[in-house]
Amino acid sequence: MKYSSSLLNEAVEALSELPSIGKKSALRLTLHLLNDESNLALRIAQKIVDLKNNIKKCEVCYNYSDHKVCQICSDPSRNKNIICVVESIRDVMAIEDTDQFSGVYHVLGGIISPIEGIGPSELNIDGLIRRVEKDAPKELIMAVSPTIDGETTIFYITKMLKNLDVKVSTIARGVSFGGELEYADELTLGRSIHTRIPYSTDSNI
Amino acid sequence: MKYSSSLLNEAVEALSELPSIGKKSALRLTLHLLNDESNLALRIAQKIVDLKNNIKKCEVCYNYSDHKVCQICSDPSRNKNIICVVESIRDVMAIEDTDQFSGVYHVLGGIISPIEGIGPSELNIDGLIRRVEKDAPKELIMAVSPTIDGETTIFYITKMLKNLDVKVSTIARGVSFGGELEYADELTLGRSIHTRIPYSTDSNI
Repeated sequence: MKYSSSLLNEAVEALSELPSIGKKSALRLTLHLLNDESNLALRIAQKIVDLKNNIKKCEVCYNYSDHKVCQICSDPSRNKNIICVVESIRDVMAIEDTDQFSGVYHVLGGIISPIEGIGPSELNIDGLIRRVEKDAPKELIMAVSPTIDGETTIFYITKMLKNLDVKVSTIARGVSFGGELEYADELTLGRSIHTRIPYSTDSNI
Repeated sequence: MKYSSSLLNEAVEALSELPSIGKKSALRLTLHLLNDESNLALRIAQKIVDLKNNIKKCEVCYNYSDHKVCQICSDPSRNKNIICVVESIRDVMAIEDTDQFSGVYHVLGGIISPIEGIGPSELNIDGLIRRVEKDAPKELIMAVSPTIDGETTIFYITKMLKNLDVKVSTIARGVSFGGELEYADELTLGRSIHTRIPYSTDSNI
């Protein structure tokens, strides 16, 4: 795209460094910010700087937190016997939004990926092992991506935990609600038949 | 969505004030900016502040410009006898990207819209009339949205110009290339039949 102003061009270039913002979106955002009376650009930058300077990681679960221990870990009504192991803070939010889980979390900060050069030492796996040794939870639910890397991560963690008395489960893999069988991939469909569950008329969705 | 940190929540709220950025996108952008080492948030804010403080509107065509007169208006190779009248700077860029127009532009800054309370005095119509009186171009091409408001704007400008010797044309309305007739709306299809053009094997696309 051709810009009539190099100042405009520079602003668009900076905005298009954001993930998933292309040149056209960046231009629309730039023109919005240019005509915005409330100094939104500066307010956003200020909030990000505040966030960078003051955000902490929860000492227990590595979730982002305003305090040393996050709201979830310090909530006495949460069941500390079940720890849900996830890749990122976004997964914590997604699971919290379901209102179906009352245990606590452990954020790995990624998954083991030989291709991207991410090994166990880059992740919060040691912290998880220490936490299991110390708090002796009854169950770890592995809620990581159903990929080769995810499976590798689950395998690695399970191996590290083998001398500890903790049950390890994974979230159910299967055809999603509203999904059509013919469009499900073979692996998912095959596994969903293999791990079929008894039908019950009073099961919760 | 539930956030584990109020700082995070505030940053997401600020980012989701941007047009077309919902809560999920805002969260993704916030987490990107939080982990970004290059201070992208501050750089964007600085570029926007620079832009706000230093951008000018071209005295001739009201396009955004770094100087008093924009690159297009000051380019001696552009044909000053044809002025393309558009709603916004985005339209200038879209037309420039086609490489099909070598005339100059006039940016109205919007279109007449009684519903949104935008009258002729809010737009750069007086500037256009003065420009036509002074420079006596041969043709004005009205490249505004094919809506009721767009038609109203064209009608108003044409009326204001009736004592001046200038030809007024509009860009062709019709079925777009690659578009299917059955999905074209009735008005467009009807008008495209009404304004049919002679077929020629050597016409430019």
